[in-house]
Amino acid sequence: MPMIDGEMQAYALTLDKFIDHAAKWRPNAKVVTARDDGGIHRIGYAELRDRAARVSAVLAAMGVETGQRVATLAWNSQAHVEAWYAIMGMGAVCHTLNPRVTAEQLASMVVQSAARILIASADLAPLAGQIMAGAPGLRRLLIIDGEAEGGEALEPMLAAERGTAAWGRFDETAPCGLCFTSGTTGAPKGVTYTHRSSYLHTLRALQADVMAITGEDSVLAAVPMFHANAWGLPFAAPAVGAKLVLPGRHTDGASLARLIAAEAVTMAVGVPTVWLGLVEHLEAHGGALPSLKRILVGGAPMPPALMERIEGRLGAKVQTSWGMTELSPCGTVAPLGAPSAAALSGRPAVGLDLLLTDADGVALAEQRDVEGHLRVRGASVVERYFGADASATDADGWFATGDLARIDAEGNLTITGRAKDLIKSGGEWINPAEIEAVVCALPEVSLAAVIGRCDPKWGERPILLVETQGEVSDEALLGSLRGRVASWWMPDAIYRLPRMPLAATGKIDKIRLRLEFGAG
Amino acid sequence: MPMIDGEMQAYALTLDKFIDHAAKWRPNAKVVTARDDGGIHRIGYAELRDRAARVSAVLAAMGVETGQRVATLAWNSQAHVEAWYAIMGMGAVCHTLNPRVTAEQLASMVVQSAARILIASADLAPLAGQIMAGAPGLRRLLIIDGEAEGGEALEPMLAAERGTAAWGRFDETAPCGLCFTSGTTGAPKGVTYTHRSSYLHTLRALQADVMAITGEDSVLAAVPMFHANAWGLPFAAPAVGAKLVLPGRHTDGASLARLIAAEAVTMAVGVPTVWLGLVEHLEAHGGALPSLKRILVGGAPMPPALMERIEGRLGAKVQTSWGMTELSPCGTVAPLGAPSAAALSGRPAVGLDLLLTDADGVALAEQRDVEGHLRVRGASVVERYFGADASATDADGWFATGDLARIDAEGNLTITGRAKDLIKSGGEWINPAEIEAVVCALPEVSLAAVIGRCDPKWGERPILLVETQGEVSDEALLGSLRGRVASWWMPDAIYRLPRMPLAATGKIDKIRLRLEFGAG
Repeated sequence: MPMIDGEMQAYALTLDKFIDHAAKWRPNAKVVTARDDGGIHRIGYAELRDRAARVSAVLAAMGVETGQRVATLAWNSQAHVEAWYAIMGMGAVCHTLNPRVTAEQLASMVVQSAARILIASADLAPLAGQIMAGAPGLRRLLIIDGEAEGGEALEPMLAAERGTAAWGRFDETAPCGLCFTSGTTGAPKGVTYTHRSSYLHTLRALQADVMAITGEDSVLAAVPMFHANAWGLPFAAPAVGAKLVLPGRHTDGASLARLIAAEAVTMAVGVPTVWLGLVEHLEAHGGALPSLKRILVGGAPMPPALMERIEGRLGAKVQTSWGMTELSPCGTVAPLGAPSAAALSGRPAVGLDLLLTDADGVALAEQRDVEGHLRVRGASVVERYFGADASATDADGWFATGDLARIDAEGNLTITGRAKDLIKSGGEWINPAEIEAVVCALPEVSLAAVIGRCDPKWGERPILLVETQGEVSDEALLGSLRGRVASWWMPDAIYRLPRMPLAATGKIDKIRLRLEFGAG
Repeated sequence: MPMIDGEMQAYALTLDKFIDHAAKWRPNAKVVTARDDGGIHRIGYAELRDRAARVSAVLAAMGVETGQRVATLAWNSQAHVEAWYAIMGMGAVCHTLNPRVTAEQLASMVVQSAARILIASADLAPLAGQIMAGAPGLRRLLIIDGEAEGGEALEPMLAAERGTAAWGRFDETAPCGLCFTSGTTGAPKGVTYTHRSSYLHTLRALQADVMAITGEDSVLAAVPMFHANAWGLPFAAPAVGAKLVLPGRHTDGASLARLIAAEAVTMAVGVPTVWLGLVEHLEAHGGALPSLKRILVGGAPMPPALMERIEGRLGAKVQTSWGMTELSPCGTVAPLGAPSAAALSGRPAVGLDLLLTDADGVALAEQRDVEGHLRVRGASVVERYFGADASATDADGWFATGDLARIDAEGNLTITGRAKDLIKSGGEWINPAEIEAVVCALPEVSLAAVIGRCDPKWGERPILLVETQGEVSDEALLGSLRGRVASWWMPDAIYRLPRMPLAATGKIDKIRLRLEFGAG
């Protein structure tokens, strides 16, 4: 650049700026945590920022340096948010562990990340101990949200700490977080977020046509911080100074209803099954949640009947979305102003691009109203997995999501299935997601899954597994499909489950279903 | 960074991505231009993008290269938007010229920028010719929005062009635009925008608590593209696929009323005087504009009486804001959900920080509810002016705005005056903006200005100049001030002007007022 050109300011896109912004401009806006003992803990952003800076000092004194991983095994709580900003602000990398995964798997992840410190919620101390046993590189166990045997309580160290560690002294492309994929469709892979990728993800999410969070909002994060950054809410809420409501470990309907009412929650975010629990609680026990204006759902397909129940019972608008760990995690969100439609998962906001390809990754000539394999590109999309040598993208920079999708003329995305869930029957493909969508439209069906069962003649044949909330005959279930799917797509058998098994992320656990029902 | 860390995708924040996004996801959303002949021209984003790429090819064939300045002298029109994206997309720098500035000044700016091509609206061809005469480096004059003597019409070249130039093949910190300050308080200085600074400015503006533009909006840009990027609207509208309505050269009340009604404008953006014209037109001729939900104002203080008239007559919410050329230009915007208050200019969204200092630039110990000199910092704030050797910021990276301001406990900014407008009377400072604010609160006062008049005894004494819309006595004007400002702040004289002189940017031209009335 010739000297004659002027310059705009260098201003690194680092995540510490979000909490600094909240502390300066919304010092008294609250982060609220539902405690295990039923109590509620509140803290203003200014005080939270001050505590997080002192947690950085505690970690620095323990030898944590820029670029090192620090693991967390914790529920959504104030202390977990403080640990995040402490770790990320000083340039270390927050490796979030999902307590619903086995200790063996978690230990294996920690061995890979080489974390030396594990920060755990008190009630997760037993699991933390098992992880420590399996990951000898872990030297210290710091306990938050209380005290526990076998670990050192962080709070007294924090109280004794007078200093702070310097924040933000690194490039915006420095890593800030590490999250392993749920592994529902393969071995868990680590995704390394950077300050830049999560900062830009936040700005994308805050747009009026995306999450549209404002400083007036009270946001309930019913999606866990240990999975894909709680969809970015611990960044987005302070970035606009919104109240952030954290449910701790309890996301059952009764706990959430109490919390939404007490904290005047305006926007709640989580997977569909969480809202099913909330609606069932309200239907059984009565009560209204007038403050709640909208619910952002994602992480799994939204059954239309559940969407109607939520909108009808709660009077809240449901915003559907689609994302994945590799996308930081939000991909598309249904604009607030768009009509409600359970099948539609929203549109891509600027900064994320979508492409439909064939099974070999060749772009489809027609990108609208046809089903294809979905690839994505953007500043908050993985380029290379943790520890990998090779790129996770194709030669043109597109990341293959593994999802099948359709995009309509208005740009609305519909996820039509997972490529790996496809059932091959007699040499032809059956898409279980299409069958599930039809069955889920029945008001009596809460959750439905179609998997392939080994078949000596056809290779695989589809079977249907349902969790219902009312009487519905097999004939009615099959009848709903007639004329809607090809006759050879009709399930060979129907199984009724009292509770559909869910994976660690709240999605239907198809791996377990295949183990139990897929052998034929 | 050790190899073990993964990576997120490299994805340069360049402005061509906005128009690419609109072309792909909102191909049929329209850019609408009011033509000089009273007609309306419409084009979808997909076609506009295609035309812009061909304009790039035309410019490349003329020898335009990355980093070179190309000048534009044009109204808000489709062809001007196409020229912008053509120039910026290929990595050249769009130097916007304000046709309300003298040919001599404009020629001087073009000599500095070394532009070799000038793109001008047809009716500005005479002025363009004068600029060409004063800036011999300009080799070609391309005419858009019609045809004119002395220039080559761009449209036939575009029609003949089959190729396109490659877009986006440069770093995100590459310069994209050049705009000289209005020079109302000093010599005009050039501000060089970069792709990164304008991209991040756009994401900041699109937040639900800032401009909150959605794909459902029809946005009227009544603020000129030749001044501070039309507040970023030509970037923000395609970034969300909103309809963009461009008034061409006519921003009188009748023209705007017609355009708002015809294009179902939901959001209108411009300086207060433009909306005064619209309200006066509606009051004189009747009519309603039910589609209009809100008006974003800035660029000058908002008289409370005018704000009430606008909200009362139009039924539209007024969002106040503050910015300047050096800020790309938006600094603060009143959130849509905040109560209307003419004096408040909004709050800083994340990515822009504010600091109040004393006259020497030392941060005030107390940052709330005290008046100070306003400094700012952020990714879209100038670091160094065009052609300058020295930084425009202080040692801590803060840019001194020259504005006086106050910030309340909620973070709302009130601009209380310009440091250079302060009047020194008997060795003490009088802030004319505080007097103006009180007088403007009278319903009969449309515009008010207080300037210093030379005084043999006191050095300077304040005098009041008003443009009124009804009968109001001098006594009533002075009476409004009694008890509200110190007695020695009372103006020594009152002048009534049929029309307040406005500078090229629509602000009150205090330089001219001082020339006419300041000598004493």
